[in-house]
Parts: sequence; C-alpha cells; structure tokens
Amino acid sequence: MLGGDGYLGWPTAMSLAAAGHEVGVVDNFARRNMATELGSNSLLPIRPLQERLRAWREVTDTHMRAWIGDITDAAFLETVVEAFAPQAIVHYGEQPSAPYSMIDRRHAVETQRNNVVGTLNVLFAIRDLAPECHLVKLGTMGEYGTPNIDIEEGFLEVRHKGRSDTLPFPKLPGSIYHLSKVHDSHNIHFACRVWGLRATDLNQGVVYGIRTPETDLDERLCTRFDYDEVLGTVLNRFCVQAVVGYPLTVYGRGGQTRGFLNIVDTLQCVGLALESPARVGELRVFNQFTEQFSVNTLAEKVASVGAALGLHVVVDRIEDPRVEAEEHYYNAAHTKLMELGLEAHPLSDEVVAHLLEVIARHKDRILIDPIAPRTLWDPRRR
Amino acid sequence: MLGGDGYLGWPTAMSLAAAGHEVGVVDNFARRNMATELGSNSLLPIRPLQERLRAWREVTDTHMRAWIGDITDAAFLETVVEAFAPQAIVHYGEQPSAPYSMIDRRHAVETQRNNVVGTLNVLFAIRDLAPECHLVKLGTMGEYGTPNIDIEEGFLEVRHKGRSDTLPFPKLPGSIYHLSKVHDSHNIHFACRVWGLRATDLNQGVVYGIRTPETDLDERLCTRFDYDEVLGTVLNRFCVQAVVGYPLTVYGRGGQTRGFLNIVDTLQCVGLALESPARVGELRVFNQFTEQFSVNTLAEKVASVGAALGLHVVVDRIEDPRVEAEEHYYNAAHTKLMELGLEAHPLSDEVVAHLLEVIARHKDRILIDPIAPRTLWDPRRR
Repeated sequence: MLGGDGYLGWPTAMSLAAAGHEVGVVDNFARRNMATELGSNSLLPIRPLQERLRAWREVTDTHMRAWIGDITDAAFLETVVEAFAPQAIVHYGEQPSAPYSMIDRRHAVETQRNNVVGTLNVLFAIRDLAPECHLVKLGTMGEYGTPNIDIEEGFLEVRHKGRSDTLPFPKLPGSIYHLSKVHDSHNIHFACRVWGLRATDLNQGVVYGIRTPETDLDERLCTRFDYDEVLGTVLNRFCVQAVVGYPLTVYGRGGQTRGFLNIVDTLQCVGLALESPARVGELRVFNQFTEQFSVNTLAEKVASVGAALGLHVVVDRIEDPRVEAEEHYYNAAHTKLMELGLEAHPLSDEVVAHLLEVIARHKDRILIDPIAPRTLWDPRRR
Repeated sequence: MLGGDGYLGWPTAMSLAAAGHEVGVVDNFARRNMATELGSNSLLPIRPLQERLRAWREVTDTHMRAWIGDITDAAFLETVVEAFAPQAIVHYGEQPSAPYSMIDRRHAVETQRNNVVGTLNVLFAIRDLAPECHLVKLGTMGEYGTPNIDIEEGFLEVRHKGRSDTLPFPKLPGSIYHLSKVHDSHNIHFACRVWGLRATDLNQGVVYGIRTPETDLDERLCTRFDYDEVLGTVLNRFCVQAVVGYPLTVYGRGGQTRGFLNIVDTLQCVGLALESPARVGELRVFNQFTEQFSVNTLAEKVASVGAALGLHVVVDRIEDPRVEAEEHYYNAAHTKLMELGLEAHPLSDEVVAHLLEVIARHKDRILIDPIAPRTLWDPRRR
C-alpha cells in the first residue's frame, strides 16, 4: 500500500487488513507536509501513522508493517519490495491534487517528477524483484478530460480508413497533475506490453465521504478530510462551506460534469481489483465511479439538505479559476467494476446530511482562509 | 536552439544562421558525455562547441551566441530566455536514444526526468517570459508505434457511438525514450490549450546522412556521426558495418517499417516550420519524414551499393534485442510539410555511396566493440 497514510490510502489499508490480507504501509508523509505548506489542516484530527498502527493493533489484534520513505528513492523502494515480497501493490503514492500542480513552475515540475519517477521505480521493482505482482494503480477520470464522444474504459475501438484497432483512449487532461497520471498510464501500458507485467489502472472519479467500517471502530483510526481549495474535493469542500456559512464556490457556470463515488466504494473497488487480478501482460483499465453529477447539481443538493438541517446555504458562482469547459457533453462508461460485483452506495440526502453532521461536530477546527480559490490555471488572468 | 551541439542541432543552427536568423545555441554536452560513457565516438572528429563557433565566424563572418548549461535547471534557462528574447525556440535538447533509455532503471528514469522536466521548463519559460515565442519541438514518429490503422499527423477524427471529435492520435510508444516524447506531446498540448502557447511538434522519422551545405564549408564545421548500437541510427550504422566488414545487424525478421529522411531534409523541415509558425493556442503536429522503408530494404540497399563499391557486405539476421512487431502494417501520413514546400531528397544509391565513401575515409577511427547490440528491451531474455 503505497501512500498508505493518505485520505484514501489509510482506509484502504485498514479495509484490506480487515479482509484478511497481510498489509504493509509505505508513506513519506507528503500529504501531511502539503497541508502544512498550504496552511490548511485536516478537518478530523488525524494521528501520526505510528499511533494509527498501534491503535489498529489494539482494536483488531492484527498487525500492519510500515516503511517510511520516498518511492522516488529506488533503493528504498527495492528494500521494501524485497522485504515484503508483495503479491500486489496498491499504488496511491502520488501527489494527488490538480490545483497543487498548478501553483507555479516549481510545483508543476515537482508533481510530474514525483509521480512519474515514483511509478517508474515501482514498475522496475516489480519487473526485477516481484514479476508476478499485480499493480493496482490509482489513476483518475480526469485523464480523459471532456471529449465530445462517450468515454470508454481505457481503450477505444477505432475504425479508420477501412482498418481497425483497439488503441489507448485519447487523453485531454486538464492540469499538470492529470497529465502526470496520463504519463503513468502510458508507462504502465509499456511495462505490461514489453515486460509482461500485470496491472489495473483505476481511473477514479471524485471521491467524497469520511467514514468507512474501519474508521468507525475507533476515533484514532479516522482518515484525513481536506476542505481547502487545493486538497479538498468539491463535495467535501461544499459541505464544509455550508457548515461555516461560506458561500458554496461554484466555478463559472457550474456545468462541469464528472464521475463521483463514495469513499466506501473506493475501498470496495480496490478490493475487487485485487481479488480478480489482471492477466500476465495485461493493462486493465476500470473507470471507478458510480454516478455522474454536475457541480451545479452538487451545490443544489448540499443547499437543500443543509436547509433541512437549519443551515443557511448560499451558492456563489465565481469566475472559474481553472481553464475548462463549463458546459460540455459527458457520458463515461463504468461497467467493468459493476461486472466484478461493485455494489454502489449512491449519493443520497442521508449521506450528505451525515457529512454535514460530522463536519459540524468539528466546526471549531475549520480554517476559513484556505477555502477561497486562489490557484489560477492561467496566471495571465491575474 | 536547445541541444545545438548535437548531430542535428549543430547543422540546424548553422542552417538557420546561414538563412539570416539570429541564432543562440544552448547545450549541456549531454550527447558528448553519453558517447564517453558508452565507450563510443563520433566517426567524424568533431570540434569543441567553442571552436565550432569560432570557425563559423571565420568562415561566414556571422556570430552565434552560446550558453552552456542544462535546461532542467530552470534558473539557467530563464536567464537565457530573458537575455536572448527568442521569437522561436527549436528544442532538440533531449536524451535522443531509445536503447540508452532501456539500459537499466537508472537510465530509464533519467531519460524521462531529463526530457519531461526540460520541456516543462521550456513551456513555463515561454509562458512567463516570451509568450509570443513559437516552440518547434523535436518529437518522433516512434510515439505512434505500429498501430493497425493509418497514422495521421498528431490528431485523429474519431466517430464513436454517433458522435465525433478530433482527438490526439492514440500512442503506442516502443521504449522509455519514446514514452518521454509522448509525455512531452501531452504537456505541450496542454500548454497550448490552457496558456495559449503556439507550438509545432515535429514527429521525426529516422534520420540518415552526414553532410549539409554548411558542414561542407569547412571540416571544422562537421557534425557528429554515431554508429554504435545505442546512438547510431539504423542506416548510418549499416553503412559503417558495411565499411568495416561487420555483418549488417538486422533485428529479427527485419520487417520493421519506419519513416526515414535525409539530414538535409531535417534542416529544411525545421526552417519551414519556423517560417509559418503555429497560431496562438495551436499545437500543430507534422510527421517529418520523406519515405518509408523496412529494415530489410535498407540492408539490401546498403549491400548492393556496397558491392558495387567493392565491399563484401553480409546481412546477419540476429535475434531482435527489442520487443517490437517484426512484421506489421505501416502507413503514415506526411503531407503537411510537403504542403509547406518541403522538397524531399530521396534515398538514392548515390546518397548511400557517398555515405560509404565518407565513412571509408575515416575508417581508422571506427571502434568495433560498441557496434554489437547488447541492450535488451526485456532483460528476462538474458
């Protein structure tokens, strides 16, 4: 479990351990350091990884090993792979934020260097030290962008001038971060084609939510929850804005449509991918989300559920700090994980209400300053 | 002119200077250092860059400025861009060899780090310091791989489930090096889409040849000519093998078909791209080659021309050290540069004969050891 201390990595590690897998956690605390750099924090007070692991052992009587280090350091990664001899590597170990990658040149270069080099090191470590190992890599639906055709799962059957082939789906990523994931996808595809590695690329939608069966076991096991403009995903951020009386920041016309999923479905999807591994030489791509929403739809939902809870929620359409289509066609396939047995947890009013209630309990921890969008995709607009 | 000391960079710099452009040369001598690392050399004895520039001034009475440094060092690159204020940047400044990128993990990671970071720095330098500047970037036909459909120039009109869009042509690159160029192409496309940069991606075929109008002016102006398994392109390598009586090393069945062009046409293409720059916000992709050949066809041509010159040429079909299709469909569009006025210099027997003659004059400099292929795409085959 690379990146096993993060928003999704930590609950996934617990979920897999609870399912009986032997889990090793690798992290360099990049996500915690990013929050420190940005002057933001996690809504829930997360414990140090070492204390999380101690609590996990107390509560479940099972043990997870941990390695603290950076996977862009090949010698470190090789030590871990040799010591642990993994049957599968779940790779969340990347810089995960689009706005972070757009702050300036230095953050852009560092995002691509970190993500591309880390993933290359993983591919070489598998090739040379654990060639049977199944790589489960977290990609993003944002690799596809918003083409004017239906989005398929990783590959497209192309008919052209009387011939046909199945080729990688063309990509129109919308940030330096999303580009880094496109680069990863091409590198992983190569490793499968040329070295016979087996990999699953999970092109995940936008995740929301805060609780999983394992975080509920003990408050020390909670996962981080970011709500600032750089690290917070849109629905999580809207819910925090609703609780503190900050207008919901809809970017531009709000017609931006994306795939979304509950954090519990992220865990389920990773588990399903691990249970049915890719074949030798296969790169399998799953689009990992359960529902499509526009930003406007999400804002309206948070406003209506918030109102029912007595919150006064205002929606504020601000100038889009990103360069993106604000209205567009969007229809993305996402059947492969359902065929493997995914039972989706749709976004209900109850889910939103629960999120708002948890956030309200921690309202005193919320920092206002990091919420407002200030990272511009095109700095000439300043 | 980034990479202005290399096989193509140096003759291109001279060609543009001869055409009346003010040219600045940037290089970190990576190519010279690679040859040193590999224990190989340039067939022609090349002079230090500083002496080349002195000779150029003596011969032509025109001056080229030079900056020695690494474009992955953003501060260095920004200094150059601020000082020179370029109207266009011709970007050859990358690790150019597929086998070099496949030597081991370290060379693979360094290839992608060097090429991706360097090009990102170029994009940011243009955005922030010279937004009108036209980027002419050397890509490679190898980005496309060998799909079972016709290859178009950068983009593909896709019809899918009743809708259509023009999307980046899907890529199947065949090495870590070729992958780095795919990453660059995606990054450049983003910079054009989001920041309004103007760029031309020249997806170049395999270059052969040794003389240009400017190298003929003075022997001190000659360009490097590599013939080893890592840095030498196939036709150049075959000609050296023919001269020294080394069997021509055809990889596998020899049906690998690629686009080829004479070095003089490389210079012509770059000049044409500069004369008709891309529009603001446009990424233009040209497939830069003049003819398609299979490896077998080239070997036969060298053998027959060599025989006419009294050389005893043997063709040796060795096990392919690469992982690639040895027989495949290949039909790649290359009309856009012809529409701009490219006058192709086809591969004639005279061109091959001239190459063989030049090589024969420098036969005593040829090192045998670096010629044999030893870099394996899949090291498990050892």
